[in-house]
Amino acid sequence: MKLPGQEESDLSSASENVPTGELDSGPGSGLSPDGPLDIDSRELEVPKDPPLFIQLNELLGWPHAPEWKETGRWVLFEEKLEVGAGRWSAPHVPTVALPSLQKLRSLLAKGLVLLDCPALSLQELAEQVIRVESLSPELRGKLKALLLQRPQHLIQTPCISPCWGSAHSREASQEEEAPLKEQHQNPRRQKFPAGAEAGAVLAGQLGFLEQPLGVFVRLQDPVVLGPLIEVPLPSRFFCLLLGPPTLGRGYHEMGRAVAILLSDLQFQWRVRRASSLHDLLAALDAFLEEVTVLPPGRWDPTARIPPPKRLPSEHKRLPSQLRVAKGPSLRRRTPAEDRHGRRQRAANPELRRTGRDHSLDYLPFRLWVGIWVAIFCLVLVATEASVLVRYFTRFTEEGFCALISLIFIYDAVGKMLTLTRAYPIQRPGSPTYGCLCQYPDPGGNESQWTSTNPKDRDDILSMDLGLVNASLLPPPECAQRGGHPRGPSCHTVPDVAFFSILLFLTSFLFAMALKHIKTSRFFPSVVRKMLGDFSSVLAILLGCGLDAFLGLATPKLMVPREFKPTLPGRGWLVSPFGANPWWLSVAAALPALLLSILIFMDQQITGVILNRAEYRLRKGAGFHLDLFCVAVLMPLTSALGLPWYVSATVISLAHMDSLRRESRACAPGEAPSFLGIREQRLTGLAVFILTGISIFLAPILKFIPMPLLYGIFLYMGVTAISSIQFTKRVQLLLIPAKHQPDLLFLRHVPLSRVHLFTAIQLACLGLLWIIKSTPAAIIFPIMLLGLVGVRKALEWVFSPQELLWLDELMPEKERSIPESGVEPECSFSGSDSEDSELMYQPKAPEINISVN
Amino acid sequence: MKLPGQEESDLSSASENVPTGELDSGPGSGLSPDGPLDIDSRELEVPKDPPLFIQLNELLGWPHAPEWKETGRWVLFEEKLEVGAGRWSAPHVPTVALPSLQKLRSLLAKGLVLLDCPALSLQELAEQVIRVESLSPELRGKLKALLLQRPQHLIQTPCISPCWGSAHSREASQEEEAPLKEQHQNPRRQKFPAGAEAGAVLAGQLGFLEQPLGVFVRLQDPVVLGPLIEVPLPSRFFCLLLGPPTLGRGYHEMGRAVAILLSDLQFQWRVRRASSLHDLLAALDAFLEEVTVLPPGRWDPTARIPPPKRLPSEHKRLPSQLRVAKGPSLRRRTPAEDRHGRRQRAANPELRRTGRDHSLDYLPFRLWVGIWVAIFCLVLVATEASVLVRYFTRFTEEGFCALISLIFIYDAVGKMLTLTRAYPIQRPGSPTYGCLCQYPDPGGNESQWTSTNPKDRDDILSMDLGLVNASLLPPPECAQRGGHPRGPSCHTVPDVAFFSILLFLTSFLFAMALKHIKTSRFFPSVVRKMLGDFSSVLAILLGCGLDAFLGLATPKLMVPREFKPTLPGRGWLVSPFGANPWWLSVAAALPALLLSILIFMDQQITGVILNRAEYRLRKGAGFHLDLFCVAVLMPLTSALGLPWYVSATVISLAHMDSLRRESRACAPGEAPSFLGIREQRLTGLAVFILTGISIFLAPILKFIPMPLLYGIFLYMGVTAISSIQFTKRVQLLLIPAKHQPDLLFLRHVPLSRVHLFTAIQLACLGLLWIIKSTPAAIIFPIMLLGLVGVRKALEWVFSPQELLWLDELMPEKERSIPESGVEPECSFSGSDSEDSELMYQPKAPEINISVN
Repeated sequence: MKLPGQEESDLSSASENVPTGELDSGPGSGLSPDGPLDIDSRELEVPKDPPLFIQLNELLGWPHAPEWKETGRWVLFEEKLEVGAGRWSAPHVPTVALPSLQKLRSLLAKGLVLLDCPALSLQELAEQVIRVESLSPELRGKLKALLLQRPQHLIQTPCISPCWGSAHSREASQEEEAPLKEQHQNPRRQKFPAGAEAGAVLAGQLGFLEQPLGVFVRLQDPVVLGPLIEVPLPSRFFCLLLGPPTLGRGYHEMGRAVAILLSDLQFQWRVRRASSLHDLLAALDAFLEEVTVLPPGRWDPTARIPPPKRLPSEHKRLPSQLRVAKGPSLRRRTPAEDRHGRRQRAANPELRRTGRDHSLDYLPFRLWVGIWVAIFCLVLVATEASVLVRYFTRFTEEGFCALISLIFIYDAVGKMLTLTRAYPIQRPGSPTYGCLCQYPDPGGNESQWTSTNPKDRDDILSMDLGLVNASLLPPPECAQRGGHPRGPSCHTVPDVAFFSILLFLTSFLFAMALKHIKTSRFFPSVVRKMLGDFSSVLAILLGCGLDAFLGLATPKLMVPREFKPTLPGRGWLVSPFGANPWWLSVAAALPALLLSILIFMDQQITGVILNRAEYRLRKGAGFHLDLFCVAVLMPLTSALGLPWYVSATVISLAHMDSLRRESRACAPGEAPSFLGIREQRLTGLAVFILTGISIFLAPILKFIPMPLLYGIFLYMGVTAISSIQFTKRVQLLLIPAKHQPDLLFLRHVPLSRVHLFTAIQLACLGLLWIIKSTPAAIIFPIMLLGLVGVRKALEWVFSPQELLWLDELMPEKERSIPESGVEPECSFSGSDSEDSELMYQPKAPEINISVN
Repeated sequence: MKLPGQEESDLSSASENVPTGELDSGPGSGLSPDGPLDIDSRELEVPKDPPLFIQLNELLGWPHAPEWKETGRWVLFEEKLEVGAGRWSAPHVPTVALPSLQKLRSLLAKGLVLLDCPALSLQELAEQVIRVESLSPELRGKLKALLLQRPQHLIQTPCISPCWGSAHSREASQEEEAPLKEQHQNPRRQKFPAGAEAGAVLAGQLGFLEQPLGVFVRLQDPVVLGPLIEVPLPSRFFCLLLGPPTLGRGYHEMGRAVAILLSDLQFQWRVRRASSLHDLLAALDAFLEEVTVLPPGRWDPTARIPPPKRLPSEHKRLPSQLRVAKGPSLRRRTPAEDRHGRRQRAANPELRRTGRDHSLDYLPFRLWVGIWVAIFCLVLVATEASVLVRYFTRFTEEGFCALISLIFIYDAVGKMLTLTRAYPIQRPGSPTYGCLCQYPDPGGNESQWTSTNPKDRDDILSMDLGLVNASLLPPPECAQRGGHPRGPSCHTVPDVAFFSILLFLTSFLFAMALKHIKTSRFFPSVVRKMLGDFSSVLAILLGCGLDAFLGLATPKLMVPREFKPTLPGRGWLVSPFGANPWWLSVAAALPALLLSILIFMDQQITGVILNRAEYRLRKGAGFHLDLFCVAVLMPLTSALGLPWYVSATVISLAHMDSLRRESRACAPGEAPSFLGIREQRLTGLAVFILTGISIFLAPILKFIPMPLLYGIFLYMGVTAISSIQFTKRVQLLLIPAKHQPDLLFLRHVPLSRVHLFTAIQLACLGLLWIIKSTPAAIIFPIMLLGLVGVRKALEWVFSPQELLWLDELMPEKERSIPESGVEPECSFSGSDSEDSELMYQPKAPEINISVN
């Protein structure tokens, strides 16, 4: 602690040797054996300090039966021993009272500081430590015996509370200073990478001392200090804080303060390089310069703060004078960087033509469209048109995403309503009973009933059945016995409509619930991940089970039984002209132009999303090559009459998601950090071979009731639309200003401007929807491009600063921690690879947009 | 800030004049005009300091166009001006960097401190302030002009951002020092109680100053400083922090530090009584002694912490040496306190006999049971048996609550399944078509079909209809035309089963969703409260609308059409013997004994819950009187054949909840504090008169489909069971230890012991359920009392400390802030007075437990 008035000078001295670059390793630096993957630090490539495990052993039970007990441990966050419950607390942000840090400073200033102590064992270390001037020889002996006493650790293995209190012997350990068996059995041991070191803090009240004793030791080489540390890590730091009972819990709090200091990367860096007591105290002062202070009346000091999702960047910890102002405006990228680096995300543009599956010979015409598309695409490749994608911003991408999601939702609900029309609900008085089984006359003539051919319901209902040769058998049995089911209600099936709605709700709600399990606390994370990943499949299986159990005649998925061209009478190859006039092959260029726009946008947006900087791809993007491949495949599929082009966005994103590499060894409380993508071609190939094999699943797929699939479509639509910022802004319209979440853009853009931006986006969406639903749908692809134009025009309405907050994502690092409200992904069906596979089963065309 | 080594002495000096009692006013002390309601402080009855509104005006735009702008404000929490967005941030816990506090201390130590300054206007104050030695007369004039310049306030009225930047004039205000019109129009003004004062902090960089200037003024009498403060409050404190631009944002941060200090109750208390600069600095040091420190590497200083639900008790802020150890074991109450003060909660014991609606003349027997119950109850009153309720602990109450909730859930689902049996689902092949309308022979004889009386489905289905004089008319029309509907499916109604399930799900899910809206961010709080409070009614209305729209023959609520005894042929009074033998009137004592136990427990548990200390009732409890009233009413209702006894728990709790008084004037971010209950008899009387009048609602109630009500029962069961700690402990069984929430009892009780406690509770519940479902149900009341015995036996299994954490609630104050996981209420149907009313409509007996 410094004298008042010294601040200005101290501020500069504190910052003069801050190891900015070396410590700028981001959140993954704690224990990640893969090393820092933050791009900045990767570029610097400096040797890093090993991670440090700090343990606080507290001396309890003085004077009757003094014993050391591990009561706290730190890597990034603090874990506290819950003495009563006999368990470790959840990792939390360590907080400490300011006086503890001050007391610690004065104790160390007066105490013994040994830097680069050459001790090679706990014995030798104890010898060094007890050479404090103020101690009498007798006290030195007592203290040494106490230091060699074996501490009690709570190893987190399944055991009830008394086991850790009695299993360990209390006698001083006289064994050799090698790691003990229990230390090796500690499951935590595997969490540490090679080279990790430990810091031991021993604190407590000791009655025979007359004044507080503070010792800080940095060992020359890290040494395994016998049973001192719960894991067999060599210790680099050793701190002893003992004293008479006047301070009470003060020693414990000072011990915590040392541990918190040591767990701070910058303090650690300084102390590893300190050459004198002065350096040690300077490191402590530098730490104090940076602490955040919570006022006593507004914050309960015993409250535990859960670990933030992202740690503050070590770079930011430079004193403000030295820190380069990195406002968003300085972060603008060069055009070249824009293409690969900008965070752009797009909807799942399934805007595939269904083409109609006029009075023309369709397939030959389609063949010519395909040929023209191939030509246009090749022209786009040759002219390097892919650079145009940089004009797609969040505005455009969210527009796509919202539109597709709404189509999913609209179609799912629409199909369900159509279904209830096909299976009418039987209201009281509806002709439930209007069905008879009519037998042919014994003479072979049809009876009077058929010949008079009754027209309306009342005719049938009031007909005198005495004249009819008929029975009440249900239609299937009737046909079996040689009769004919006659009447208006013979083909209505009761109960199916409502049961379909129930199945629809089952798959929707069940898939939603399972998705939420993934982020809940229940079950081990493997089970949770499994349930979340397979949510749609499990929901469908549940629904199928329910359907099979009740055995109702619900409408099922239609699958062909044979592997052959669906249209009877056509071969595997499409003839180039068929019955069409020759000029149609030229006229096909017009629809081909529109289709090329769609394919280009779909292909390129997928490319842009997959090549975002946040995915850390190393093998580079292939925008032009991809489009070239599409162009080559186009005439091939057209000639074979195969579907043209499957939007790759969902599959590709799901595929990429499943290939994420994340750091496994994390400090307690630290979120796993993303390391990169396992870039290879094997899984992609396997996925498509398996997709091909799925045609043999037809006998199973036919048991899936359609309402279940509509429910899954609703789930996908709802999931996708709730993931985009646009939806959050629409919700803001309903939230009073007082209750609005602390979103970053709300801090910087006036609410009325946010609402204006949202309203313009809503208007665009409405216009697109209207165009899609009317005969003007043919110009739909052009209108999608128009969205890009609208975004350009917005630059006349909004300031660049406003557009930066509303339309572009800040780099992750620039965001502050509580911004959990802002989620950047348009996670269309997210990581559900099952979804995406199902989507491309034969039922997928159901939800395509007709552009005819 | 102190020198190292001074801590011990400072610690004691800092605490010697801490105003413990006077400041121990709890969270409500901020702006509550009703004064502190915390019991401890109410007993002390000391005069309180007025609440303080602190405003930070920052000097921006130097040197071109210097102007003051309000950039922050404080009462309990900090609100920050979002400059870009032109709005105030949400209130948050103020955090500050430690160096800012240190710099402030050194600036004040060197600066001008005026205590009890006699200035009466801003002019006079400015005159006083500029008399700093270091300033030249020219600079004094410049500074005075600047101080009189009118600041810009962002009054939170609906306006778009430019309005506050331009609407106010920039010229220095030369008007009189009276509150301005805008200040009076500020909606925030109403938030302040009479006597509230303001603190004005002016900070910023001022180029013409050569060294930093710090002035702290405490005014002798609070003065309205013209337009300085956004609300027309008289200012008591004035702080000026200006200086050359070397410190940059430092002045802003120092200004925030002053404001945070002034918003601290203890600092404020000391500064109001300070008589010298030394006292001021001592107050600052005392504040620093208590701050909590967040380490820089683990916490982003720009992160905003939302206000905690409960503020730390000012009492806790005493230095640890002075604080009396208040462990839970010291909190044990005396038996007398137990009766009224212990937190005891009970289920909704609807365990009312339905009595059976053997071959005895029922009502006379019931009359005798009633007479016996009255006698037993009077004995209980005379023996003061009500003191026994103190043996009901959380264990017992949660057992009741869980049991009743499970009965609700089980019965709701069970009734729905029964319904689907009454309205069978039409599977393919089921006899949908087996119904004919048969007409009598013209000769008046029944046709052959009826006379042969076909036995099974096949007989009817294969019968040659040529011999039958019949038609296919639906049953209602058939009857109209004089025919008879014949056949196995004439009385089956298709679609009703599944539609009932849909209605059931509609009311359940909709009620759940509306309940969640109450705690969501959407809509103004009035709307949210309305939607949440009326969730069940709205869910029922929605379901009724759906039902009416589709017009299906769903089963509806049965309501009698006339006001008369339900049983035909009996009068208003029950005869004392009827056809029963005389000894039955003596034998009735046995069931009466069991019933008395039930009634006693129900009545007394309700009383205990309502008289909990947390409700702050002033008029005292009437355990014995209440039971006496019940005893008197018993023979009366028995003689009239009315229902005996309606469990008052739900109604009473809902009633009490609606009579809560909460503080209206809260500091921004402060949760409203509970003031007490409006204790009177008027509303209770009105509720029961209206309940009586509800018999005239019968014509409306008959439109309510039963499945809707089952859905509401399910909702009530699920809501109630999820609100108890028992459920949270059951959930813990599914949560891996790593992910378990930071519950208080988990910090103090080993997990295995928690699970054991839960398992015992589950076993008791299972046993009770089995007894309830078997013929042994008659001993059910005794088993309920057995629960109390089991709880007593638990004292042999668990230590008193463990039972204290698991079975008794800690007083609110002892709990730490993040304990939001622990909710103490068994909120059976919570605040839904609508629910409780509906529950006692004629359908309620549906879910009673039969003890026969």
